[in-house]
Amino acid sequence: MNQGSWKRKHLLGLRELDAAEIRLILETARSFKEVLGRQIKKVPSLRGRTIMNLFFEPSTRTRTSFELAAKRLSADFMNIAANASSMSKGESLKDMILTLNAMRPDILIVRHQSSGVPRLLTDYTDAAVLNAGDGSHEHPTQALLDLLTAEEMVVSLDGKHVAIIGDIRFSRVARSDLYGFTKLGARVMAVGPATLIPEGLEAYGVEVYHRLREVLPQADIVILLRIQQERQDQNNFPSLREYARFFGMGDDAVNFLKPEAIIMHPGPINRGVEISDAVADARKNRHPGSGDERDSGANGVSLFIGDPWLNW
Amino acid sequence: MNQGSWKRKHLLGLRELDAAEIRLILETARSFKEVLGRQIKKVPSLRGRTIMNLFFEPSTRTRTSFELAAKRLSADFMNIAANASSMSKGESLKDMILTLNAMRPDILIVRHQSSGVPRLLTDYTDAAVLNAGDGSHEHPTQALLDLLTAEEMVVSLDGKHVAIIGDIRFSRVARSDLYGFTKLGARVMAVGPATLIPEGLEAYGVEVYHRLREVLPQADIVILLRIQQERQDQNNFPSLREYARFFGMGDDAVNFLKPEAIIMHPGPINRGVEISDAVADARKNRHPGSGDERDSGANGVSLFIGDPWLNW
Amino acid sequence: MNQGSWKRKHLLGLRELDAAEIRLILETARSFKEVLGRQIKKVPSLRGRTIMNLFFEPSTRTRTSFELAAKRLSADFMNIAANASSMSKGESLKDMILTLNAMRPDILIVRHQSSGVPRLLTDYTDAAVLNAGDGSHEHPTQALLDLLTAEEMVVSLDGKHVAIIGDIRFSRVARSDLYGFTKLGARVMAVGPATLIPEGLEAYGVEVYHRLREVLPQADIVILLRIQQERQDQNNFPSLREYARFFGMGDDAVNFLKPEAIIMHPGPINRGVEISDAVADARKNRHPGSGDERDSGANGVSLFIGDPWLNW
Repeated sequence: MNQGSWKRKHLLGLRELDAAEIRLILETARSFKEVLGRQIKKVPSLRGRTIMNLFFEPSTRTRTSFELAAKRLSADFMNIAANASSMSKGESLKDMILTLNAMRPDILIVRHQSSGVPRLLTDYTDAAVLNAGDGSHEHPTQALLDLLTAEEMVVSLDGKHVAIIGDIRFSRVARSDLYGFTKLGARVMAVGPATLIPEGLEAYGVEVYHRLREVLPQADIVILLRIQQERQDQNNFPSLREYARFFGMGDDAVNFLKPEAIIMHPGPINRGVEISDAVADARKNRHPGSGDERDSGANGVSLFIGDPWLNW
Repeated sequence: MNQGSWKRKHLLGLRELDAAEIRLILETARSFKEVLGRQIKKVPSLRGRTIMNLFFEPSTRTRTSFELAAKRLSADFMNIAANASSMSKGESLKDMILTLNAMRPDILIVRHQSSGVPRLLTDYTDAAVLNAGDGSHEHPTQALLDLLTAEEMVVSLDGKHVAIIGDIRFSRVARSDLYGFTKLGARVMAVGPATLIPEGLEAYGVEVYHRLREVLPQADIVILLRIQQERQDQNNFPSLREYARFFGMGDDAVNFLKPEAIIMHPGPINRGVEISDAVADARKNRHPGSGDERDSGANGVSLFIGDPWLNW
Repeated sequence: MNQGSWKRKHLLGLRELDAAEIRLILETARSFKEVLGRQIKKVPSLRGRTIMNLFFEPSTRTRTSFELAAKRLSADFMNIAANASSMSKGESLKDMILTLNAMRPDILIVRHQSSGVPRLLTDYTDAAVLNAGDGSHEHPTQALLDLLTAEEMVVSLDGKHVAIIGDIRFSRVARSDLYGFTKLGARVMAVGPATLIPEGLEAYGVEVYHRLREVLPQADIVILLRIQQERQDQNNFPSLREYARFFGMGDDAVNFLKPEAIIMHPGPINRGVEISDAVADARKNRHPGSGDERDSGANGVSLFIGDPWLNW
């Protein structure tokens, strides 16, 4: 907190944050990380504050991560079932939020299938809104975790090469990662089939590639994105097998990496698609920074899989 | 607590309470309301006590309200999934409650689709039972919130005119409101299509009307009831459109109200049915008593929408 | 804790525990039981520890029991929805546990439809794993509760006769009970139709019977097992009615019991199958040891129904 102070009320995305703001968050996270090494993994920072998880999309991992973080910060935490069936016929999102707001929550953590909903909700609540993923827009806390994890492994992101592989087009994680890594000085390379790379990425300073082997030898950090099989009726690539062959991280691909490179995946992984069993099982994804994380896969790479607050 | 003390174990309905008991609850609520203005919205009143939410009917808002109240009073709170599928074949309600009772909960909050279940359960548990809505019988905490909200706006309910509009017949909220407002000295006017007004209401001191405009000019407080669309296969009125035209609170209707009248709705609202978009969007439903609530709709009315513990 | 100390990390089953270990757990439970008699039923023993309930099989009672125990011990407790639908396509159980492990839970409470899963998970987590029922293998906490309840009623289990009646073959409760009661010196008699008695039980020191009336006069403790009707397509007995007639505990059967015998059932009961309405309704299942439990059924028997931590 020495290098500045947090002036925003909401956390809606990384696009609007500047490097100093991102660094302030990472700095604060590192100070809390120390707490996780204690037997009593709990601090009173948010005692008496009310946090509501308002997830319109199903989620186990992300929801659990936020719940755990809330409890370890001593907040009162509530999961609000917010699926379609729980919204009454004739009730608008606005009405629902106004009602929840009357309960005076301090923080609303919102996940929604439509881009922009968290920002929209800020008009109807006095609470701070935290975006836990909105449509294909942003997933800022996942990206902050990615930044934290990567920085612990490579010391400084400045000038490092980050390869983001896969479904860049529909991935909110990719979008937030792209903003975050770029703002902290890394060079981002997007890799995937043409159908999964949106146009105009270059305007964000991103280099676009369509062949994995062109980027692997340069990469310091490899970020694999989850192929969302439920979306594959759109035929953005011929088959999962085809995808795995050209963009999957198998033993072959790993051999093209520098020995000190790290592989990350937001999880859950599709074994045999984005990553082979052998590479997945060589992972050492616990506790970066604890000294034992340099345990390695076939080629000495470190692999991190997880959701916000998970990987450390 | 100065004007008497609470002698009951359970809260099953407002019918059995006298005015002094209702006033004692409202008085206590007002003292806790002050807590909500603090940054640490938490008091140790129920520390170490176990509260179980046993909801046989789905609910998001009411369940959340009780959970939040429990946590802000420092109780240990548990949601018990109590739908049909969680009750085992061959297990009776009695068996289920005896088993839960062995866990020694202090308070059981019960919602059930059948009238009388909360009272029935008092035979099988040592816990205090709080009725969170049973069939078309009572919903006492909603009515207590309505009383609290109304009293804050109109200072005293004595001699005030309260118009309850809509599905009086099947509404447990209407029933509890009717007992509550009458006991505190208000004159209750029931308004709705003949099919939705039960017979014999006059015996409770209620005046029955079938035309909205006959009651609006006199009303100090207007309570709109939710039309439960899922029940409309019973054809209690020709169509939602018809209902909206004759009993909906639209701009026309609002113009018949006194400027200082308030409109309340237990929520969730059916926009375009009980209330028009324009009236709903003119609402100011936050924090009555905080000084800013006289913000107004087209005609200066105040609108409150919510569930127990929500509106303040 | 005087007679030894707990050296294990996990609680996977009673088979691997020796009598001293089981007695240590029961001893500890008895000291916590006293807490339940207080108004503030809460102790700080697990403050700041994180407990996750990972239930792959649906459960209301057992899950609630663990949640309540966790809260009364001041732990941070989280339910992880772990059904098939929450596991993503392509994600293995191993991946899921590695991800959860990165959150650093202290205790994982696991229920799974396959035998052996809790033990398997110990390879992938740093947390202590507590088996809350795995396939038809073990359900150690239910058996520990059964031991505690029985010991309170009969003072010492040494030399006592325990009749376990019903589906011994598929019941994990039966298996754990059998290990537990035998280790504490009781003589276990298994009773049921031949199709529901596994072969080789005698090797565990269990006597096998197929006629209820042969065991009732000797039994000090009768444990009824739940007939899982969902499994009865396997035709292990002609009909529920037939089962009730030969193995159900009705008024006739009760008359064969010694007056001081106790009847237990893990719950939920199938009325009219394992137990008649009359016997079930004569139960007195609250608070053994509190002095009032000797209230009785037709024949003076005491009946206890429940899940872990429930019956006291």
